[in-house]
Order: sequence, then structure tokens, then C-alpha cells
Amino acid sequence: MRAWRAAIHQEPELSNEEVRTRAKIVDALTGLGLRPTTYPGFNGVSAALALDRSGPTVALRADLDALPVTEETGLPFASRFPGRMHACGHDVHMAALLGAAAVLKRNESRLRGPVKLLFQPAEEDGIDGGAAPFIARGALERPHVDFVVGQHLAGGIPLGVVGWAKGPMMGAADHFIIRVRGRGGHAGYPHRTVDAVVVAAEVITGLQALVSRLTDPTDPVVISVGMVHGGTRHNVLPDTVDLEGTVRTVRPATRATTEKALRRRVRHIAASLGARATVKFLRGYPVLVNDPTATDIVVRALTEELGGDRMVELEAPVMGAEDFSLYLEKRPGTFLFLGVDPPGHTSSLHSARFAPDESALVHGAAVLCAAVEGLQRG
Amino acid sequence: MRAWRAAIHQEPELSNEEVRTRAKIVDALTGLGLRPTTYPGFNGVSAALALDRSGPTVALRADLDALPVTEETGLPFASRFPGRMHACGHDVHMAALLGAAAVLKRNESRLRGPVKLLFQPAEEDGIDGGAAPFIARGALERPHVDFVVGQHLAGGIPLGVVGWAKGPMMGAADHFIIRVRGRGGHAGYPHRTVDAVVVAAEVITGLQALVSRLTDPTDPVVISVGMVHGGTRHNVLPDTVDLEGTVRTVRPATRATTEKALRRRVRHIAASLGARATVKFLRGYPVLVNDPTATDIVVRALTEELGGDRMVELEAPVMGAEDFSLYLEKRPGTFLFLGVDPPGHTSSLHSARFAPDESALVHGAAVLCAAVEGLQRG
Amino acid sequence: MRAWRAAIHQEPELSNEEVRTRAKIVDALTGLGLRPTTYPGFNGVSAALALDRSGPTVALRADLDALPVTEETGLPFASRFPGRMHACGHDVHMAALLGAAAVLKRNESRLRGPVKLLFQPAEEDGIDGGAAPFIARGALERPHVDFVVGQHLAGGIPLGVVGWAKGPMMGAADHFIIRVRGRGGHAGYPHRTVDAVVVAAEVITGLQALVSRLTDPTDPVVISVGMVHGGTRHNVLPDTVDLEGTVRTVRPATRATTEKALRRRVRHIAASLGARATVKFLRGYPVLVNDPTATDIVVRALTEELGGDRMVELEAPVMGAEDFSLYLEKRPGTFLFLGVDPPGHTSSLHSARFAPDESALVHGAAVLCAAVEGLQRG
Amino acid sequence: MRAWRAAIHQEPELSNEEVRTRAKIVDALTGLGLRPTTYPGFNGVSAALALDRSGPTVALRADLDALPVTEETGLPFASRFPGRMHACGHDVHMAALLGAAAVLKRNESRLRGPVKLLFQPAEEDGIDGGAAPFIARGALERPHVDFVVGQHLAGGIPLGVVGWAKGPMMGAADHFIIRVRGRGGHAGYPHRTVDAVVVAAEVITGLQALVSRLTDPTDPVVISVGMVHGGTRHNVLPDTVDLEGTVRTVRPATRATTEKALRRRVRHIAASLGARATVKFLRGYPVLVNDPTATDIVVRALTEELGGDRMVELEAPVMGAEDFSLYLEKRPGTFLFLGVDPPGHTSSLHSARFAPDESALVHGAAVLCAAVEGLQRG
Repeated sequence: MRAWRAAIHQEPELSNEEVRTRAKIVDALTGLGLRPTTYPGFNGVSAALALDRSGPTVALRADLDALPVTEETGLPFASRFPGRMHACGHDVHMAALLGAAAVLKRNESRLRGPVKLLFQPAEEDGIDGGAAPFIARGALERPHVDFVVGQHLAGGIPLGVVGWAKGPMMGAADHFIIRVRGRGGHAGYPHRTVDAVVVAAEVITGLQALVSRLTDPTDPVVISVGMVHGGTRHNVLPDTVDLEGTVRTVRPATRATTEKALRRRVRHIAASLGARATVKFLRGYPVLVNDPTATDIVVRALTEELGGDRMVELEAPVMGAEDFSLYLEKRPGTFLFLGVDPPGHTSSLHSARFAPDESALVHGAAVLCAAVEGLQRG
Repeated sequence: MRAWRAAIHQEPELSNEEVRTRAKIVDALTGLGLRPTTYPGFNGVSAALALDRSGPTVALRADLDALPVTEETGLPFASRFPGRMHACGHDVHMAALLGAAAVLKRNESRLRGPVKLLFQPAEEDGIDGGAAPFIARGALERPHVDFVVGQHLAGGIPLGVVGWAKGPMMGAADHFIIRVRGRGGHAGYPHRTVDAVVVAAEVITGLQALVSRLTDPTDPVVISVGMVHGGTRHNVLPDTVDLEGTVRTVRPATRATTEKALRRRVRHIAASLGARATVKFLRGYPVLVNDPTATDIVVRALTEELGGDRMVELEAPVMGAEDFSLYLEKRPGTFLFLGVDPPGHTSSLHSARFAPDESALVHGAAVLCAAVEGLQRG
Repeated sequence: MRAWRAAIHQEPELSNEEVRTRAKIVDALTGLGLRPTTYPGFNGVSAALALDRSGPTVALRADLDALPVTEETGLPFASRFPGRMHACGHDVHMAALLGAAAVLKRNESRLRGPVKLLFQPAEEDGIDGGAAPFIARGALERPHVDFVVGQHLAGGIPLGVVGWAKGPMMGAADHFIIRVRGRGGHAGYPHRTVDAVVVAAEVITGLQALVSRLTDPTDPVVISVGMVHGGTRHNVLPDTVDLEGTVRTVRPATRATTEKALRRRVRHIAASLGARATVKFLRGYPVLVNDPTATDIVVRALTEELGGDRMVELEAPVMGAEDFSLYLEKRPGTFLFLGVDPPGHTSSLHSARFAPDESALVHGAAVLCAAVEGLQRG
Repeated sequence: MRAWRAAIHQEPELSNEEVRTRAKIVDALTGLGLRPTTYPGFNGVSAALALDRSGPTVALRADLDALPVTEETGLPFASRFPGRMHACGHDVHMAALLGAAAVLKRNESRLRGPVKLLFQPAEEDGIDGGAAPFIARGALERPHVDFVVGQHLAGGIPLGVVGWAKGPMMGAADHFIIRVRGRGGHAGYPHRTVDAVVVAAEVITGLQALVSRLTDPTDPVVISVGMVHGGTRHNVLPDTVDLEGTVRTVRPATRATTEKALRRRVRHIAASLGARATVKFLRGYPVLVNDPTATDIVVRALTEELGGDRMVELEAPVMGAEDFSLYLEKRPGTFLFLGVDPPGHTSSLHSARFAPDESALVHGAAVLCAAVEGLQRG
């Protein structure tokens, strides 16, 4: 698993560009004696085991894509490409699923039902993720999938511990794009311009009060601006400044009111200085809801396998979104968090310095195998 | 002049890249029967007339470089290069100086003293402008220059009118570079990050009160942020956000206190959210101070030539900076503004839509010739 | 109950000034045939029933004080005193407890154990509330109290419905007092002053990001500024501006980190403009935690009495604080919310226009009687 | 003069309440052998000398009212009244005018023309000042006044030096009153309120950019908020917050555009969070314009009397307003600044610690006498 993971980690690819990654997955699965399926114009890979068994089919899913982050871990197998990094742990997800595939293949004769392996591209896209086209291409059929299981590395949970939840587990993630339109000009004559930089700054600051004042404090909402870009020269005020960010919510009504409040806020702040602003609000993945019954079964199986001290129920939904939610809209199943925090430290996914301990690989593979065992046993 | 100007305008070049522009100037001067001087590793061009006369030598200066602005004028001779534009009118300055050169050459026998033509690169650089290296390469010698005259297009003054001032006319322009350092991470978990985007926004907003509260309202100060850049993905908070901007002042003491206040403001705003910020403060061109006697002579000559209704004394210094100030630190002389406002409209230099009326060419050439006449007559 | 409530409502008294209110309570209890106990230097009133029974003793608590709000309800029995109003519903709590007392007194022979009635002053004080001194004066002894029950009107819950929760139900409420110290002076010469008004505004705005950026979105935190006062004349900048507000949290660790972040934020924002700020952070009531077993018993009894559709479990703790939490630190028991929302409307407690439907009186009395019945039955 | 000043200083009175102050003036003038005129319903006092002379009549004006500031000077004759202080130096103006009256009376026979003494109330009012009603009551008639002279203590000018200006000397001062209307409620439930405190803070911060971004940096504009008041309890969000402040400008067009920009800014900032705001904009005293000819005469006379090193021409208009501007709209004359800065220190008028050196008394009296001498000599 280490070798797979290092090879994948070293050559990260962004959403819908996972060509080399796909090739590595295909090679690895073939090497395990499986016959992977690929798809024209789509970077997903699937494979199946124990197709002849009559028990329930369990699909295990990993995600392929990396983030546009320049790695600063100093690892020997660090990304060779500036501006691309497996900072979200998908390399570990893939290697763990390959590891699980190896174990399951070795023990194929003991499986009660078929297992389907799903290597999905473009999870990070956020809007047009890979889950929907994968499902459209039959990911949950041939054989008909009865349960879906996925997992993700997680900060905030100790290394080696599994986090689980019944019901809502991850929020909805929407993507907003704001263009502030002022009127550019010489930076020494601000009164002859409409300063889009100052307006953009007021917009960013102004978004904070939407969370602190307009939202029920017990109803989680996140509004983050990940990108702010404007201007090409220090002494020329630009015509426009562009902001992009994300809104996370766990209730549909709050999702709607937050969008509405954000639009009103942005429009009026711009108008207050004579500028204008356009807001595009792209709805992303829906809330991820774990099936209670399937979750109970998986948690029981994992508790047997790992011990109760290695299992933790989440106190609250987390604000990251996942298009695994789309599989869960079609089939019962559960999503699990693999803790990666070393003692006394909280890991920060998406950071340029994210470097989870390698023991997560073995752990992740074991979790998937135990989940299959549990769900097929019933 | 129109043809020169259109040719230059169509192929704008940024500071210290004025290679084609230099070639066009050299060709034009040669075509006028002059013998231009060029310099290795420096894009300036000079030429001299009437070297055998005993009267005072007057140097006339134009500037060569363009701005990194994408032109939106729709002119037939608009810039062919996205991201480069003569949005500051240097094309007109060059063409007017070439026009003046043609007139002076035609009337060379009537000149009382030598005239030196200075085509200077990199005026827009702001810090390492072309004036200092031009002077170092002998711009004010061979023959020894007695007076310097320059001009610049100006909004806020009617087309065809000349703006002048005795004493301080243009402010000092300093360049600041701020890097806000937070701690990046997943945009859905802001509490695990230090949000450099929010801090940068607070810094931009915070700079406003330095002008409105810390500055004597009768002592002009401008603080503008021309560039704000941070983040590569909407759902990842970046580690850093970069700001660049300009500070304009007309008093040395205010220049110093403003730098100090800006440093304190930025540092503490960052610290208030647990971030850090570094501030580089690059001192740019000094205050441009016109020599009173030389200005009186030039104004008298222009008033004779153009009529008193075409001359206007500036009420206050303007906040744009010019490295013509460096010539004026070495030699007496004056800098003039050529109005370009059509009736009922204020032109905005540095804007992507800046398109001055072509009559400014004739006007600019006439102003330079009259200034020479006046200064050589005394 | 209506008459009691109207009489109390008309003459609201602020925390620790509840002298007339106390007299009304004493009169009413006496009129019911009870022998109320009063306390020197403390406005609480207690009374007991069925002291000879051997079953568990249940204490029922109501609160006496009003808010410094000027009533705008237009009710016939509206407050006679500008700047004082029962905008928090304590008038209803008192009348309902008196109503319950009447019912219990009438049926005293059927009670299984004693009942203690606690009319507590100064619940609104927030820091030095009446619960602690009431307990110190024996509120939970003579007879020894086994269970405590309290209730509060609540917006966000339909009229006639009871809200309940096991475990944490209401947050901790701390009180902060910030004095921004600038340097006053003539408002026309801001550069000779340090503008405490602008700094105070930046502090208020700056507090928003503590919630939106520094706090786990699933961990409820509220920071509100209820008072801002500075300046005595429009054209004189004051030396100081005073802010007061509240911090609400539901986790002790968050309470501590929020205080720390607030202190850092305020100090640096002030320093960024050359001002200073002092922060007093007064720890208020702790988190209110309902005993699970006692809550189960009460919920079961209320469900029998009212029907299941009149009971609703709270999804999340609410951010208002209550010194009933102090009784719950000493004795098992539960706190209940009495819904007052008419169809299609959310009531806003603490507002000048808060006017709950009178049916809440009957409802409140019934809830208390049923809770006693349940807890004494076991 | 010291005794007069100390007596007046000790009992300061606010605008239009100057009853004791008037009595002291009347007593002092009577004691000098003059016959002061008082006015029913108006606290002004006037007196005249040398009514039989044929030369031009010069009116000298002092102002009577104090500021609502609590004195912190520790002077032996400090204000006896908290919340009232001669922090603007009007006590010195009065004592200096009384001193001048004593000198002029002693030398009455040498005066070339009449002198009129004007002790005017309510200069600090800013909107409904005392100058207009004083003029309406004949301040500039009986005898007909030919020239008006006034003076004011000034920081920024060394002690003993007189500041003067031809043309515009002091700005227009307008008074704005903003009421931010949100919707009050419980501070623990911000989402059920519209937080007027946060909106008011954003308005205050937002006003800064009107100066820093919308105003020509060479055209002085001041916007200061002197008062911010909202809320009566730390844990209740108020319905409204009130702001009051001042706008200072020196050009009529800027006065109009600033009002317009302020109204737009405030309205949209409020709307961006769902609040409303009303803006009252009260036009105050106009620009104070000194008559060039009269100023030349006075400056010449003062230069003779004091020496050229004790006279300084102001570089720029100051932003404080004065209703002496209204006398100057009716009659030629000049307004003078009496420097009070000790070496190495800038005095801050309107501050609670303002304590000018007593030598300003003699200086002020001498300036007035010399101005009379100069203007009557012509």
C-alpha cells in the first residue's frame, strides 16, 4: 500500500484530469488479478469481486483527484508538480481501497456477496463532481449494489480512531463567485474612480456578520472566501475585483436564507460606495445522510474488529461536503472518518503541510474489509 | 504626429521593455534629419539641435513606457497587446516631442541656444524610474543643460488649456507591499485556520481611517491598494494574501508619519486575529518642485502664444508622482499639464478607456516650442 | 391568574428592586391560605404545601424581575413605568406558579409529597442573580428539596407546546464591559485626537469574525453588544466610548478561548489606531443541564397530561442563560419551555412589543402541576 | 484680566444659558465706566465707546458659551460644574475683550472713530448660533459698524504668535444626526433581531472611506462622529442606535456631494443587513471669508505692534467653523488666531485638559487694540 500511495502522491492530478492516476489504479487492480473497467471520457475505474455469490453487494468507493496546492511537506515522495498536491488524502483513500481489494481478493472465497470497487474522479470539483456521472455510467449496477461505504481522512479525530454518525454527517457546500465592479483609474486620484478593492474588502468583512448575526447560533453555517483577486499594478485601481468562496449549511432552509442574505448584503455594500456587484451562487453537493440501519451494522462490525475505544460518534455534522452524498441518496450505506491526528495535534486537511501517518493505510483497508464483512453478514 | 502616435500606441511596451518604441523614436528622429543617441542596456534616446548656439540649452523630455492595462477604447489603432496600453498618454508625449523636434529642426537657424531632446524609459516604474539612469548617462550634459521642461496629459483641465504651478506640483509616491500570513486550510473549517483573506480585507478597510482620522485634512494624503491577490481555489483558505499599493504625500513629515502609522495599523490588525503581516515600504519619486523663475518665464511665453484663457494655475498639488522631479532637483525648469477634458467630462488617466482628443498632439508640440523660445529669450 | 398577571405586569421592577412585586406575591399566597416566607434584604418569597407527606419534595420556581425596556405593546395593563417592562415573561411565570399553587392547595390532600414554591428575584441580573443567595438562604432545604422544576416562556415553539431537553439546554452567559480610550478633541481636527468612536466601531465589527472565523461552526457561540455609549456633543470627539455585551457558549473550553480571543482582538484593534481598550469579562450563569432521569419522568407525565403533539424535544441548546442552572447543580430536576408563538409568527422576548397570549397562564400552571404529579409518583 | 477670566472660567455656561456670564460681563463693563446694553430673551451684551468720533466704527467680538466637557485641568479656578468647561477658550476671548475695553476706555480721547464691543452668546451651537440673532438685534448698527474683528485661541500656532489669512479661513460645519433602526430583542438570539449596534458600527467605519476614497485629497473634508448612543442593557439588543457628528468642508460643491454620498452610504449599509437608517443633515455656519483689504490693514498694524516674527499666514483653511462668518458676510473685517502652543507642544482645544497660558490674555487684548488702531487709521 505504501508503494501505491507514494506513486500516486508523487503525481497528483486535478479534478477530471486523473489520467495517470487512473492508469496506476488499473495497473494495481490488474496486478491483483482483477479486471478493472474503465470508461471513455471519464476517469473512473471500477472492478468487482465474488460476482457469483448470492449475498448483498457492497460497493466501496475511493476518490482520485488532488488539490491545486503546492506541497510543502518535504516528504521523499512529495508532489513533483507545483500547484498540485494530495492535500485532501485521496491518495490514502485509493491505496487503502487497493489494500482492501488485495485482502478481499485473497479471501474471495469467503465473501458472502459481491464487492464492487469504485475509484471515482473529481470529488473535489464541488459542483460537477464525479459521483453523478459515475452513477449514470452504472456504478451502482452490474451487479446491483445494495450498500455503499466510503471513508475520508479526518483531522480532529485521533490516529487510528474511526468517526461515525447516523443521519446528517456532512453539510451542503455551495460555491459563490462575486465580481465587484468599480471604475478603475490612477491610484493617486481615488475620487475619480470607484474603488473596487475597498468595496471587495468591505464585502469580505461584511460576510462575517451574516454568520454572527443572521444565523441561529445552533444551526451551523460557514461562509469562507478562498480567493480574492484584483489589480495588476500597485498604482492603478482596477475596474473589478473577483471573490470566490463557499457556503456550508446543514439545513435546506438555512441554505436558502443564507444565499438570499448574501446577495442582499453584497449588492447593498457595493451600492453604498457607488459600485456594483454580481453574485453567482452555484449549488454544490447536498447534505450527506448516513442510513441509520446500515450505520448500526457497520459500527457493530468495526467495534468487534477494532474495539470500542477506536470508535467515536461525531457530536455534530462537519462542514465539509462530499459527493458520496449522491450514492447515499440512491442506496443505504455509511460514510466513515479515519482519524489522523497524532497525539496533541490537530491535522489540517487542504494545507500544504498535510502529511498523515502511514498507519492510516492499514487502518483504512481494515475498516473497509470489516464493513464488507458486517454488511454481508447482516 | 498622428501617424507617429498611432504607431506607438498600437505597440505599447512596459517599463524597461521599450525596445520597439525606441526603434520608432530613432527612426522618426533620423527621418527629421537628427542624429539620435542610444545607450547600451538602457532604452533612452537623446538628440540635440543647434549645438553651435551660445544661448541657454533647454532640454525637453518625453516618456516611453506604457501601463499593464488591457485597452478597451475601441480605437482603430488600439493596443495589439492585451495587458499593455498607453493609458497614461506617453504616446502623446512622444509624438508631441517629435512634432516639436520637427518644428525646431525646420527653424533651427532661429534658435538662440541648443535644444536637447530626451526620450526617457520607465517613468511608470515608480521606484527605479528611467530618470536617474538617464541623468547618470549624461542626459543633462553634452551640451550642459540649463533648463528642463516636461509635460503630461491631465484630466481635470479642459482640452487645450495648460496647467502650471510654481513650487510643489506633484506629490511623492511610495509603494507598499503587504503580505498577510495566516494559516491555510479547508474553507469549511475556518476555526482550524487563520484566515488571511479576512485579515487582508480588514487591512484594506483599516487603511481608510489613516487618511480620514490620522491626517490633517488640509495636508493631502492618498493611500490606495491597487492589487489584492490570494487563494487558488474557492474552498481552500490560502496561507497568504498579498496587497500592493501606493502612498501619496506632499510633505516629508507626513510621508514619514504615514509610513509609521501604516506599519502599526497593519501589524496590529493582523495580530488581532492571530495572523502576521509584513510590510515593505519602497520610497518612490520625490515631490516635483517647479523652479519659480523658470516657471514665470515659461508661463509668460505660453500666455503670449496661447492667450491667458488657455493658462490655468493649479490650486493644489496633484497626487500623481513623476520622476521628472529628479531633473528638477538638478536643473531649474518647469513641468506642465496639458488639459484633455472635453466639455462636461473629466478624463481618467490609467483607465482602460482613456482616449484623449488628438488635438493634444499639436497643442503639446506648440507648448514645448513656446517654452524653448521663452527660456532661450530669457 | 389574569388579574395577578395584569397587576404584576403593570408595575414591573428591575432586578433586586422587586419590592412591590414581592408584596403582590405575598398577598396572593396569603389569599390562597398559604404562609409565605420572606427574607430581610432579599426580595425572594417561598411557601410550602403538604409538609406532612412522606413522598419526594418538588420545588417549583418562578422569577420576579423585569427588564429596562420601555413597553410598546399597547396592552390595557401595559407597564406604567417608562424604561421597565416584563418583556421576558416573568409576569406570566409568577402568575402561572400562583395558579399552580391554587390548584395544588385545593388538592393538597392528594399530594404524595411536599411542594415548595420559590419566587426568586434578580434572574435577569446575569452575574449576581437571585438563585445563589436564595439557595444560601435555604431555598432547597426545610423541607429538603428532592427535585427542582422551572419554566420559561419561549419563542420558536408554538403556543401551548412544551419544549424539553435532556442534558445541556441553555448556554453560559458572560458579560463583557469594554472601555475604548482615545484622546478627545475638536471634531474638526481629527489628527489631533485619537478617535475612540471609530475604534469602538471597529471593535464591534471585529467581534463578528470571532464567531464566523475562530469558532467551530457546530459549537454555538454568540457575541452581542447591547450597549454602546460615547460622546456628549456632535462636534467634540470623546475621550472614551463604552461598550457592553454578552458572550454565550455551551462548552467550557469554548467559553475560555472566546474570552481570550476577544481580549486579544479588542486590544490590538485599539492599538492599531493608537488607542487603548480595557476589557472586563464577568462570568455569568453556567450552562443549564437537565437531569436525564428527572426529565424523562416529567416528559412522560406531561405527555400523558397534554398529549404527545404538545411536547417537542429541542434540537439544540438555546443561547439564553438562566440561573435555574444553579439549582440544577444542587438537585436533579428539569427546566421547561412554554411555547408562545401564534401560528405563523415567532415571538421575540426582550422586545418592547412582546405580548404573549394569555392562554400561556393556564398552560403554565398545568405544566407545573403535572410535573409535580409525575415526580412525586416517580 | 486674570480675575475676570478666572471668574468666568469657574462658572461656564452652555450655549444660550450664559446668564451668569452675561452678568459678569455687564458688571465688568460697568466697572470700566461703560454702559452695556442687554437684550430681552438673548444673552448678548454690547457696549460702545467714542460715539462722537467721525472715523470708521470697528466692532470687536467675543463669544460667551462653554462646552459640555468635564474639566480635567486641575487649575485652581477649574470649572465648578461637571459637564461644562471653557474648553474652547471663550473665557480668554471675553477677558481679552474686556482688557481691550479697559485700554480703549482709558485712551478714548485718542480714538479716531467709535468702537463697538460685542459679547455674543451661543457660538458653539453650530446651527442656531448667536451671531444671526445678534445681528438681527442691531449688533452692526447704532452706530453703523464699518469693520468687524474677532479672534480665537488656536493650537498649532506658537504662544504669542498671530495667525491670519486672506479669503477663506475656516470651513463650513454641518451637523448630521443618524438614527439606525433595527429590531431589538434578546442578545442571545441575534438571528431573531436586526442588530442596530452592528449596523451603527458599520456606518461609522463606512464614513471613513467617504473621506479617503470619494474626496479629492487636496480638497479638505472632515467627517467626525462625536456621539454614539444605543442600548440600555448589555444583554438586550436595542431597536435603535443614534449617531451624531459633523461634516467640515471648504468648498460649496464638496459640501453638497459629501452630504449626498453620506446619505447613500448610510442608507445602503443599513439595508445590507436588513435595517433602516434616517439621516438628518443640518447645515451649520458657512465658510468664514476674511476681507483681503481689511486683513492687509490689520496685518500691517499688528506687524508694527508685535514684529513680523509674531505674525504667520495660514497655509490652509482650518476645519473649525465660526459664526463670525456671518458678520463677515455683512461687513468687511478679519478674524485672527491667537497661538497658544508652548514650545514643543500642540494644544488641543475642546479637550478636557485644555489650559492655555495666561499670557494669551495680554496678547489678545493688544491684538484687538492694534487692529482698531490700524482700521481707524486706514
